[in-house]
Amino acid sequence: MKKIVVYPGSFDPVTYGHLDIIKRALKISDKVVVAVAHNTDKKALFSVRERMDMIKKAVKGLNGIEVSDFKGLVVDYVRKKGARVVIRGLRMISDFEYEFQMALTNRKLADDIETIFMMPSESYSYLSSKLIKEAASLGANLEEFVPGFVETAIKKKLKSNKKG
Amino acid sequence: MKKIVVYPGSFDPVTYGHLDIIKRALKISDKVVVAVAHNTDKKALFSVRERMDMIKKAVKGLNGIEVSDFKGLVVDYVRKKGARVVIRGLRMISDFEYEFQMALTNRKLADDIETIFMMPSESYSYLSSKLIKEAASLGANLEEFVPGFVETAIKKKLKSNKKG
Amino acid sequence: MKKIVVYPGSFDPVTYGHLDIIKRALKISDKVVVAVAHNTDKKALFSVRERMDMIKKAVKGLNGIEVSDFKGLVVDYVRKKGARVVIRGLRMISDFEYEFQMALTNRKLADDIETIFMMPSESYSYLSSKLIKEAASLGANLEEFVPGFVETAIKKKLKSNKKG
Amino acid sequence: MKKIVVYPGSFDPVTYGHLDIIKRALKISDKVVVAVAHNTDKKALFSVRERMDMIKKAVKGLNGIEVSDFKGLVVDYVRKKGARVVIRGLRMISDFEYEFQMALTNRKLADDIETIFMMPSESYSYLSSKLIKEAASLGANLEEFVPGFVETAIKKKLKSNKKG
Amino acid sequence: MKKIVVYPGSFDPVTYGHLDIIKRALKISDKVVVAVAHNTDKKALFSVRERMDMIKKAVKGLNGIEVSDFKGLVVDYVRKKGARVVIRGLRMISDFEYEFQMALTNRKLADDIETIFMMPSESYSYLSSKLIKEAASLGANLEEFVPGFVETAIKKKLKSNKKG
Amino acid sequence: MKKIVVYPGSFDPVTYGHLDIIKRALKISDKVVVAVAHNTDKKALFSVRERMDMIKKAVKGLNGIEVSDFKGLVVDYVRKKGARVVIRGLRMISDFEYEFQMALTNRKLADDIETIFMMPSESYSYLSSKLIKEAASLGANLEEFVPGFVETAIKKKLKSNKKG
Repeated sequence: MKKIVVYPGSFDPVTYGHLDIIKRALKISDKVVVAVAHNTDKKALFSVRERMDMIKKAVKGLNGIEVSDFKGLVVDYVRKKGARVVIRGLRMISDFEYEFQMALTNRKLADDIETIFMMPSESYSYLSSKLIKEAASLGANLEEFVPGFVETAIKKKLKSNKKG
Repeated sequence: MKKIVVYPGSFDPVTYGHLDIIKRALKISDKVVVAVAHNTDKKALFSVRERMDMIKKAVKGLNGIEVSDFKGLVVDYVRKKGARVVIRGLRMISDFEYEFQMALTNRKLADDIETIFMMPSESYSYLSSKLIKEAASLGANLEEFVPGFVETAIKKKLKSNKKG
Repeated sequence: MKKIVVYPGSFDPVTYGHLDIIKRALKISDKVVVAVAHNTDKKALFSVRERMDMIKKAVKGLNGIEVSDFKGLVVDYVRKKGARVVIRGLRMISDFEYEFQMALTNRKLADDIETIFMMPSESYSYLSSKLIKEAASLGANLEEFVPGFVETAIKKKLKSNKKG
Repeated sequence: MKKIVVYPGSFDPVTYGHLDIIKRALKISDKVVVAVAHNTDKKALFSVRERMDMIKKAVKGLNGIEVSDFKGLVVDYVRKKGARVVIRGLRMISDFEYEFQMALTNRKLADDIETIFMMPSESYSYLSSKLIKEAASLGANLEEFVPGFVETAIKKKLKSNKKG
Repeated sequence: MKKIVVYPGSFDPVTYGHLDIIKRALKISDKVVVAVAHNTDKKALFSVRERMDMIKKAVKGLNGIEVSDFKGLVVDYVRKKGARVVIRGLRMISDFEYEFQMALTNRKLADDIETIFMMPSESYSYLSSKLIKEAASLGANLEEFVPGFVETAIKKKLKSNKKG
Repeated sequence: MKKIVVYPGSFDPVTYGHLDIIKRALKISDKVVVAVAHNTDKKALFSVRERMDMIKKAVKGLNGIEVSDFKGLVVDYVRKKGARVVIRGLRMISDFEYEFQMALTNRKLADDIETIFMMPSESYSYLSSKLIKEAASLGANLEEFVPGFVETAIKKKLKSNKKG
């Protein structure tokens, strides 16, 4: 039987920090399901489809990765995939509290599923999709933060949003 | 003279964490005034009236509790009730900072009133009304988090909001 | 050559906490540029022009201070002013994390520019523009938090917003 | 029946921060028992007797305060005094974690006893007996931190320790 | 090939918190190596042999657990066991910082080895071997914190230390 | 007049993290005084003289740096050097609290002197002299953490301590 871990998130858009966690997750499992959440509350920059496409492009060449999307509770999705492990990156104290709240809530909802936490490289410990989008809207060069094609997509999207 | 403590909050809706603090507050005082804030900024799920009704139902059978609502500054309300003590639950670091800011600000506004902090049971340390509403909107079972009639009310409200 | 430091922020409106940092920044430099950000996302209470005017009035009589505004990236503005140092106040843990993320992101964008942090007096460690505006909307006396003319401006603005 | 709260600690020696908490505790109770712990592990600067004497001198003129000492578990002592409330000051995040661990452990040991937390004035939020002793050993003036007779006692003790 | 995770620590002595993490680690792997560190600095209450024996007794009946000891760097030991994953429990913010420092240092020493973090049940989030030993020395009942035979061992050891 | 900043610390021994802060301090001042504290409490691995020699060797070729030592209060030493600014590196939350306590205490002792904080590169955010010495004692390769001659000195010192 293969060990599957599910890495859920918004990925709006994927950053080098996410990609770092995906690669580390691969080292400790047989398969990583990167699962983009249909998050109706938050105003996303990219559609779920666009976010999935960017992740797929960014992990091209790596074996053992499935990119998908999900609605509803993470724990229900994890079970549906035949997995028992959720993986999350932990960067900072504020992550820590939110993630712990989520992990404990998920445990109450489904105590057969465990959340494990991994640390990204310290080079990416400060990265957040939100900060990157802010920086982009102010004209920043994003090459330290996201792959080139993601930078292009962000800038194009911001431009078309401005026009719209 | 009776020792009165005021426990202000949004209570949108009341959770087992709030109820735990209310019971602990009763142990150290003669009367606990649970005070629902008229919070014009935040989009509440329930009206102040609905929130008060749910608290009343949840504390039925306990003596020494008054459920009410207030507008304006907490400290003004506390004085009006003849109390000098505000009680707040502390769960996590992020609570801690926000609560300390509030407590210090309140002290500047009214230095005759003290804020005291109590810890909920560790079983409820992760609970937040916000997380519960999110989980409910994704179809979660809420029995570990809120009384049954509150779960029913949340699900009914979410359904009618969707229709609306 | 003069040592210039740039103190960027929202200053919506300026508080005694900001003024405390400005005075401390003056002690370690020859010139402090207080730079009000054109922040298109956040709903500000005051216009950039109003915020600049309040800061100017509050620092009247102090030498070595320039009050200005900027659009785009802080680091680009800092370079344009011929400065290499950004100054930020640190009050609490939550500041700390956000500020560190910003400082590291800025360093990636411009590694010739350094961010330094100073602590306000402990008397102002709890102050935030957001909390002050909330307190004002609830009818609080603000004399411990902001200069008198700022209090007047907040209350006038809140009243005219209510009418609008 | 009188409401009694117990304020346990090392008080080696008492600082303005402790005295601030004692006064606040008095505002919310009828009697405050300041209880100096016989702490066999830590190397104290002052004997339990000396520490009690300094607290007594510092609170002279305040009604409703009893200064005593205790061995063994805090919760056993609290019960012996006919109290049900332990009071602790919370200054910083690091306090917060240690205090929460202690409070939860005490709750497991005696669930009829509650710990409540109060904040000292922000003027004393940075004070610690340890830091004060360090500063004293380096020749600092302590007038901002402790009463004059405590400063004298610290300096005398440090001098006699050096000789010994 | 079997997935092995190494759970290193002092375990002086093992608590219900440690046992909770061991069981969770078993759920996500094929084998958990519980590795007691020869820690020359810290004054341990129990010998490495005694600590190993207590863990063995506490996990009796669980399959997939190996209890062992190690000297030197964790990462060297992990490699020697043919494993690539270190597991650590995260309870609180203070854990978080120390654990992250350790994990990053270990990554620099051996970048083929990953540290993953799991959360104990919230029922054990406050537990620490240190606090338990302190409570025991003050006469506390430890049944909420450790298995009965561990409580007996602690009390016997503390008594013999006192005599010695 | 030249802007002098004092960078006090234990430096037992100097790490790449310290060197990173020294270089950043140079960018915002005319002269950096690296001041090794005579710290009688802590058991240092290296003598003050050895620590100063290692720093001098590590900063060779950089202009504007003075390496010295001091006894007594930092603020007294800062004044003696004709400086008004203390610089400290901030890496983590735990640093943050300790550093803030120190900075506020120093401000009470000498309100003409300001403490400013800088962040090391994220590559060094996890480094501590203590952790490095522990790793060294367990046989770790230190090339990512300290200059080669410091690694040699640590290992020689640890070996001679073991013999002694």
